[in-house]
Amino acid sequence: MNNERLSQIVDFCKLIDKEKFIQRRTYLSDGERLENDAEHAWHMALMALLLSEYSNAEVDVLKVVSILLVHDLVEIYAGDTFAYDEEGKKTQRQRELAAAERLFSKLPEDLAHKMRMLWDEFEEWESPESKFAHSLDNFQPLMLQHASKGRAWREGGRKLSEVMERNSRSAEGSAQLWEFARENFIQPEIDAGNLMDDLDTPKE
Amino acid sequence: MNNERLSQIVDFCKLIDKEKFIQRRTYLSDGERLENDAEHAWHMALMALLLSEYSNAEVDVLKVVSILLVHDLVEIYAGDTFAYDEEGKKTQRQRELAAAERLFSKLPEDLAHKMRMLWDEFEEWESPESKFAHSLDNFQPLMLQHASKGRAWREGGRKLSEVMERNSRSAEGSAQLWEFARENFIQPEIDAGNLMDDLDTPKE
Repeated sequence: MNNERLSQIVDFCKLIDKEKFIQRRTYLSDGERLENDAEHAWHMALMALLLSEYSNAEVDVLKVVSILLVHDLVEIYAGDTFAYDEEGKKTQRQRELAAAERLFSKLPEDLAHKMRMLWDEFEEWESPESKFAHSLDNFQPLMLQHASKGRAWREGGRKLSEVMERNSRSAEGSAQLWEFARENFIQPEIDAGNLMDDLDTPKE
Repeated sequence: MNNERLSQIVDFCKLIDKEKFIQRRTYLSDGERLENDAEHAWHMALMALLLSEYSNAEVDVLKVVSILLVHDLVEIYAGDTFAYDEEGKKTQRQRELAAAERLFSKLPEDLAHKMRMLWDEFEEWESPESKFAHSLDNFQPLMLQHASKGRAWREGGRKLSEVMERNSRSAEGSAQLWEFARENFIQPEIDAGNLMDDLDTPKE
């Protein structure tokens, strides 16, 4: 058997084990431990199978799932950039582009291209699949924030204006999921005093 | 908005966060920490995107990925049954069937059916997608065993006969992946003294 191609793919599969060591800033539902990138991607990929009917536009589910499985891989080299780290965000795009070059070029050319296309599609935020993937990428941590009683928001002294800014495009992929998240994940944490309402939202 | 259906799905999505707390017996590639079920499922789903060309039979990749994302969910109620736990394996099927009933019935009926079909297909080990999913479910931990220098095998005093028994059907989904694993993951750990060769395999 000519193993060169297979060896190259397997080396990549071994390398991406590192995604399991990249910590996010969201607590798991028990409120005790932070989530890592691999867990986050698994959770969203499965949620895509269950929630695709709530996408604004019809989507190719395999593509949504593939995008979600792949979208954080560049962080293996670029590191996680915290959603509220304004300094880090200035260099994020440049760091992640370099990471994508370095990472995906380890694969045979056709698969490198395939992975890069999926990552680019996510970053471009234009296709229905990309928009829905972004909606889930916003919805899932909001769900965990609420499940973990707003611990990360409370500890970080987060303000509603920051959360709204971070979610400014969430409705593009799924208006229904965004509305659900506002009512069921964000508002209760404002009411509980874990998220500061600096917008003074009028009660409905 | 009628939220009843969406609420039900979201409650399920929140519940399955628990998969991240189910520890497996395989160390991650750094050899320091054990893998959990969610990380394992993410890793394999991504590997399915990269390795589907090595399936013996042509496969529907979305189905393989879906099966892999879902296949360990029942462990949320049934617990992980260690591959080499002969006592636990006697009651495994019965415990997992009860868990599947309990877990998937929390979803709206159509989605409960969809999830159950995916899990049943994995368990039945008959379709090309199921066989390939099983091949990956065997290949990925072998890859991590080797990457973590056989730590779990060494600590457990594992024998080659046990590993071969556990992998007795691995080649059904992918003869090439199984051959690769024997040569590149199993044999080196025998040579390094981390896996006992009780079969006295003749060197090729």
